[in-house]
Amino acid sequence: MRLFKKSSQKAGLPPGTLMHIGKNRTEEVRITLIDYDEHHVEERPDLTVESCSPFKASPTVTWVNVTGIHDIAVIEAFGKVFDIHPLVLEDVVHTGQRPKMEDMGDYLYIVLKMLSRANGENTFEAEQFSLIVGNNFVISFQEREGDVFQPIRDRIHTGKGRIRKSGSDYLAYTLMDAIVDNYFVILENIGEKIEILQESVLTEPDPSNLREIQELRHEMAFLRRSIWPLREAINALLRTESSLIGDSVAPYLRDVYDHTIQLIENIETLRDAISSTLDIYLSSLSNKMNEVMKVLTIIATIFIPLTFIAGVYGMNFKFMPELEWHWGYPAVCLLMLILGVLMLLGFKRKNWL
Amino acid sequence: MRLFKKSSQKAGLPPGTLMHIGKNRTEEVRITLIDYDEHHVEERPDLTVESCSPFKASPTVTWVNVTGIHDIAVIEAFGKVFDIHPLVLEDVVHTGQRPKMEDMGDYLYIVLKMLSRANGENTFEAEQFSLIVGNNFVISFQEREGDVFQPIRDRIHTGKGRIRKSGSDYLAYTLMDAIVDNYFVILENIGEKIEILQESVLTEPDPSNLREIQELRHEMAFLRRSIWPLREAINALLRTESSLIGDSVAPYLRDVYDHTIQLIENIETLRDAISSTLDIYLSSLSNKMNEVMKVLTIIATIFIPLTFIAGVYGMNFKFMPELEWHWGYPAVCLLMLILGVLMLLGFKRKNWL
Amino acid sequence: MRLFKKSSQKAGLPPGTLMHIGKNRTEEVRITLIDYDEHHVEERPDLTVESCSPFKASPTVTWVNVTGIHDIAVIEAFGKVFDIHPLVLEDVVHTGQRPKMEDMGDYLYIVLKMLSRANGENTFEAEQFSLIVGNNFVISFQEREGDVFQPIRDRIHTGKGRIRKSGSDYLAYTLMDAIVDNYFVILENIGEKIEILQESVLTEPDPSNLREIQELRHEMAFLRRSIWPLREAINALLRTESSLIGDSVAPYLRDVYDHTIQLIENIETLRDAISSTLDIYLSSLSNKMNEVMKVLTIIATIFIPLTFIAGVYGMNFKFMPELEWHWGYPAVCLLMLILGVLMLLGFKRKNWL
Amino acid sequence: MRLFKKSSQKAGLPPGTLMHIGKNRTEEVRITLIDYDEHHVEERPDLTVESCSPFKASPTVTWVNVTGIHDIAVIEAFGKVFDIHPLVLEDVVHTGQRPKMEDMGDYLYIVLKMLSRANGENTFEAEQFSLIVGNNFVISFQEREGDVFQPIRDRIHTGKGRIRKSGSDYLAYTLMDAIVDNYFVILENIGEKIEILQESVLTEPDPSNLREIQELRHEMAFLRRSIWPLREAINALLRTESSLIGDSVAPYLRDVYDHTIQLIENIETLRDAISSTLDIYLSSLSNKMNEVMKVLTIIATIFIPLTFIAGVYGMNFKFMPELEWHWGYPAVCLLMLILGVLMLLGFKRKNWL
Amino acid sequence: MRLFKKSSQKAGLPPGTLMHIGKNRTEEVRITLIDYDEHHVEERPDLTVESCSPFKASPTVTWVNVTGIHDIAVIEAFGKVFDIHPLVLEDVVHTGQRPKMEDMGDYLYIVLKMLSRANGENTFEAEQFSLIVGNNFVISFQEREGDVFQPIRDRIHTGKGRIRKSGSDYLAYTLMDAIVDNYFVILENIGEKIEILQESVLTEPDPSNLREIQELRHEMAFLRRSIWPLREAINALLRTESSLIGDSVAPYLRDVYDHTIQLIENIETLRDAISSTLDIYLSSLSNKMNEVMKVLTIIATIFIPLTFIAGVYGMNFKFMPELEWHWGYPAVCLLMLILGVLMLLGFKRKNWL
Repeated sequence: MRLFKKSSQKAGLPPGTLMHIGKNRTEEVRITLIDYDEHHVEERPDLTVESCSPFKASPTVTWVNVTGIHDIAVIEAFGKVFDIHPLVLEDVVHTGQRPKMEDMGDYLYIVLKMLSRANGENTFEAEQFSLIVGNNFVISFQEREGDVFQPIRDRIHTGKGRIRKSGSDYLAYTLMDAIVDNYFVILENIGEKIEILQESVLTEPDPSNLREIQELRHEMAFLRRSIWPLREAINALLRTESSLIGDSVAPYLRDVYDHTIQLIENIETLRDAISSTLDIYLSSLSNKMNEVMKVLTIIATIFIPLTFIAGVYGMNFKFMPELEWHWGYPAVCLLMLILGVLMLLGFKRKNWL
Repeated sequence: MRLFKKSSQKAGLPPGTLMHIGKNRTEEVRITLIDYDEHHVEERPDLTVESCSPFKASPTVTWVNVTGIHDIAVIEAFGKVFDIHPLVLEDVVHTGQRPKMEDMGDYLYIVLKMLSRANGENTFEAEQFSLIVGNNFVISFQEREGDVFQPIRDRIHTGKGRIRKSGSDYLAYTLMDAIVDNYFVILENIGEKIEILQESVLTEPDPSNLREIQELRHEMAFLRRSIWPLREAINALLRTESSLIGDSVAPYLRDVYDHTIQLIENIETLRDAISSTLDIYLSSLSNKMNEVMKVLTIIATIFIPLTFIAGVYGMNFKFMPELEWHWGYPAVCLLMLILGVLMLLGFKRKNWL
Repeated sequence: MRLFKKSSQKAGLPPGTLMHIGKNRTEEVRITLIDYDEHHVEERPDLTVESCSPFKASPTVTWVNVTGIHDIAVIEAFGKVFDIHPLVLEDVVHTGQRPKMEDMGDYLYIVLKMLSRANGENTFEAEQFSLIVGNNFVISFQEREGDVFQPIRDRIHTGKGRIRKSGSDYLAYTLMDAIVDNYFVILENIGEKIEILQESVLTEPDPSNLREIQELRHEMAFLRRSIWPLREAINALLRTESSLIGDSVAPYLRDVYDHTIQLIENIETLRDAISSTLDIYLSSLSNKMNEVMKVLTIIATIFIPLTFIAGVYGMNFKFMPELEWHWGYPAVCLLMLILGVLMLLGFKRKNWL
Repeated sequence: MRLFKKSSQKAGLPPGTLMHIGKNRTEEVRITLIDYDEHHVEERPDLTVESCSPFKASPTVTWVNVTGIHDIAVIEAFGKVFDIHPLVLEDVVHTGQRPKMEDMGDYLYIVLKMLSRANGENTFEAEQFSLIVGNNFVISFQEREGDVFQPIRDRIHTGKGRIRKSGSDYLAYTLMDAIVDNYFVILENIGEKIEILQESVLTEPDPSNLREIQELRHEMAFLRRSIWPLREAINALLRTESSLIGDSVAPYLRDVYDHTIQLIENIETLRDAISSTLDIYLSSLSNKMNEVMKVLTIIATIFIPLTFIAGVYGMNFKFMPELEWHWGYPAVCLLMLILGVLMLLGFKRKNWL
Repeated sequence: MRLFKKSSQKAGLPPGTLMHIGKNRTEEVRITLIDYDEHHVEERPDLTVESCSPFKASPTVTWVNVTGIHDIAVIEAFGKVFDIHPLVLEDVVHTGQRPKMEDMGDYLYIVLKMLSRANGENTFEAEQFSLIVGNNFVISFQEREGDVFQPIRDRIHTGKGRIRKSGSDYLAYTLMDAIVDNYFVILENIGEKIEILQESVLTEPDPSNLREIQELRHEMAFLRRSIWPLREAINALLRTESSLIGDSVAPYLRDVYDHTIQLIENIETLRDAISSTLDIYLSSLSNKMNEVMKVLTIIATIFIPLTFIAGVYGMNFKFMPELEWHWGYPAVCLLMLILGVLMLLGFKRKNWL
């Protein structure tokens, strides 16, 4: 995971210049539209921008979902059809935005980060998700195929819950709620990784743990940078005086807001856990080193003196009376044995064994 | 102890969906009711939800205690009988709530965490405790059998103290107070564990201490996450303009509020103590390693040179005049002795002995 | 020093129950009374509670000092005679209070911690000190004999300073001021201990330092928990609208307030100093270990190769031409000498000697 | 990079004394002027201060760029011609300013730090950039040749974007925006350095890493000191009631403000990354030490006992029956082999191999 | 440098008691007076307190500078002549004050710390500097001879700058400005010491560095305690509604205020630098230890097995066929050589050489 998005290519361009910053994550731009009110639902896949135009003024709620933001021409067309400010479009295609909410008068502009678990891998990927919330339409921009909105589409089609009876503000809430709920899934996944790591670090510290800890730190830093401003954005939405957000949505927004607070709490818990994992890792290393040292010391301390004694009686002096004694050899062996046992007892007393 | 509750199963469900998140901690749901005023007390165990209904409107204070929240049907029945908002019911059965207070107009909704010392084990368990405080009734939901309210039940029955003369607000206060008081018991227990651990870490550091420290850290993190928002909730209760909280309860609430501040202070003290325990543990390890190194160095430094001398006179050169000397052997022994003593003195001077 | 006071025994008791929490620190309760105004002073030792009663309404200033708070009956009698709220009395006898100020209308209730240097020992002891400040009386409760008020008693008797001309508010200020001033004495004492410890840790780190550091940390944590809320309490006193605190006392209270800020600053300085002492201790340990390692390495590195050479010429091969040479032995000795000197020079170059 | 700019030479001088603090970074002062409105552009290189004078009152927008601030006389001349307060001039030539915005009534004074990547080197250089924003003129002071404004000059000449249609406030915004955008380039550069460093520290920790980490820390500290006050300055600009900043510029300023927040976030991310790099470095060192110790211990532990056995049978006792046995030698060799293999298995069990 | 000033001697004294706390830093008290307005200057050295009296009411600005504050009688005389409150006088002679500003109605009382580089030594000394700012007089108290005001005296005499045309408020500002400017000199000095220390710690860590780091930490803690409250004091001066501070001085005070912010920033930078110096020191130690361990391991690992081989062929078994072989000795020597080279290659592969 990179420390942050590159935005240096934009340096020097005049403000309002559309330029896609980020990776191309899908082949072509796909526009899908769902139009509904209490009594009807209509889904149209693979539209052109222009064919969305009539839905703008219709009294029904229209959700235009755009997958792929690398095609500047499409984004500019949206700008024209839905009358969106160039600075907003600039932000839509620049994937290095912080989550934020901006009240543009006729519509609200909301940016957040949508996470998805990378297939088969033990990590997650993030993409930028922009929302344009108008009077009776919502335009959502995502970077690539695959999202967390299938349950919402189902609810619209089946008419379950309040969604069909509510306006574009409730739709926008539902989308944000789905994304925020998905954060919990990601966090739990990371939480489990940390618990496993802590266990392995306690029992068998390994240099590779260091890289894992580092990786987790980066992920938490990213999540933190995503959620803190998200909370602010939702708070701004709660306090906005815009007529686009009806009073009936307020309790639901407050609910999402509570969720972001809980997310932040969980993130701080995980950050603590990661940093204590590093502590444990280092202590475990010290423990192991200590153990290694003890073994070395015990072996060396017992045998070095014994070897010295053997060395003494290996000297070739002419006159070494002990050498001539008949019981010399057994006596020395006994001496060595006693010495060795004494030292072992000493270590026992020091609790080294 | 898990880092946090799982709530990922809920991702994708429409808001207001009741779904029990947490472990089933009791076999079946038990509903107990105590109805009292200054002049009479009546306790009815094992009721059905419906049979609670008549007490709702009666002028006496009614306390309905529900043990077990995994049965969605029961909770929904309560919702109907006592006219409780679905979002509140959703929170009641989702045990991953942060402590909070919500003014719902006709009633207040309060969530907190009730702790209990696990039987025979050296740790505690937490369960979610929800309170619905209405005009003359209090409904409490706990996850399982066993609580800290026996003294309160006794006081209701005996009529000791103010409780029989006061309304549902005082009853709610008493319940919260009992739970908060219990935190002190838990904290003292942890405090003792830390003191014992610190002592053992100072005198005999052991790798298992690391796991204990880690365990304590998790517990403190959990307690912290429980009490900080609890303080906010009680503060919100103090400042609420709801008529459900009478003026006469205010000084008592302020008292609980003071207790939560004291709890927070104690928690911070314990956290400090835990982190300094880790410091001591690491220093003790270093100390021990140092001691081990010293022993190794002393033994090796004394005997390696002596062994070298022995080795020299073990060489098989034809012409080594010393070997022929009559006093060669004793002289070399003396030399070794002197060398050894000199080195011991050197270590003494360096304070290694 | 314990991490905090036990208050778990109280869990489950109804609010307002008097129960002494803490150690019995004196045999019997002693009540002393000083009554004074500008023109007269009267001191009465060893009174009963009831005999204090007439002084309550008299226009002169009355200071009732109670030593020993473990006798619930005495405290309750005070409650009756001076009309003190049960919740206040409960706090008086529960020695685990945080310092605080409470405006009870007819009187103010102030709690703080009074420190005293334990006789002969290198540490301090704390006791709870409660003040009831009424219109023309002050009741002070302390846990045991011995306090820091002798200079105040002297000033009252001799009439030096403003005290005889001022009311009960000034008397309360004087008592608090004496206690706060005493904190400086304690802090200086700790400061000196830290300076000595730092010096000893720099020159001769010893495992016992760890325990001392730990002890100092506990003490600082306790002092911090005593002084931060004390500052708040004095601030509350400064801002109170109670008529019990006259305008003329305000500058003096501001002075005490300034002192508490200075105390907090000193405490933070000491905490910094303690934590840097631990750093130094650990670095000194590392330094020592490094030194030990160097000695071991130098000895081993010089003698291991030499011993090897000696070992080679100690082999018993039939055909080892060197052994037959007449100058073989001196040549090998010379070789060993040269090798040893070369290695010593190498260590010199690496700055290990 | 120095910890901070020297400003001690100024101690003792009266306020308002012009004195250049900093290095002379260019040979001579160069004054360039661009005058434009919607319909015309005029660029005049290498002017004198006096020849700028007529442009001051003209209704067209005039941008005077001064390269080199070490010549006090030139700065003073500007002060006279454009009527600038001596305290402002003092700040212009004192390169140790914190970024700030000051509303001087007739003009605004803005200071910030302009960064540029040093040629060929892996670091950046900073220079002080001052802006005087008047009604229809902007004076910019930079320390030396080379800036990030070429795209702006091009836009003025080609008339692309809003710049030619806007006033001096928009010009000032554009200059600040260019400088802030450049910070992203520098930060990305540092981010890459950190990522490379982290990788190298994980795989091959080297003492030289320490110096790099230290260097990066200094750079981050400098950037932090540059950007935090810059954010405040831009915020002050956003909130100023000065008529010099038109309403139409506000959204653009808010955009720059958002960028500074993002910069701060990136800086904090990088600081975290640097400090975790140090952690990794230290852990990697410990890992390596551990590995070294293991090798030493394995070798020593296996061979020291074996050497002892060899030593025993190298003793010259007369009566050592084993020595006479025909199979003595092979038996001892076998014994040694078995011992060695056993110890290797022991290490395997301890996971040291 | 002591951790803080002793003030325990004062414990127990009534408020308002003058008692000099601090060292006697000058032999006798010296009072110097400068009286000036736009048209005249008059300097009178070595006055008595009483002879200052007539200047108090004169319309000219009078600066009375008192060197030496240990003579309580002199201070009390000032109190009488200039009508200064006893609590202020108490603070003047108690050198353990925090910097502060107090509005006493007729005059302002300002305390700060004046630093001076100790002669020939590598550190600085601090003394308490008190200012009484009246309507047309300024009384300054310093602890000893030598200050940073010579340039101000010169400016008064020569009439350079605004000083002669301004009132006592400007004079007070000038004095504070001189002291604050001097902090920069001290900080730069410390900054240089830190840079030198960091360099030496990187290349040649030495236990004495620890003491230096400790010393620097103490110094920074002192400076921090001096400057943070100073900033508050100057801020209070900026916001005071006292008529003693004219509007024309405000921009100058804002300038000093900016300087204190910059000082705080520099101090935080230096503190960071010091703590990273400790990090580097510890890492350098680890590096060195690692290097030592490597040398030990290489030598031991190569020679221990070789010595074992030599030991084997030093055994005295009767039947050791190799010993009889003609090429046995050269073969064993070759074996040893090969083994040694192999191990060296192994170390090379592990990057230990």
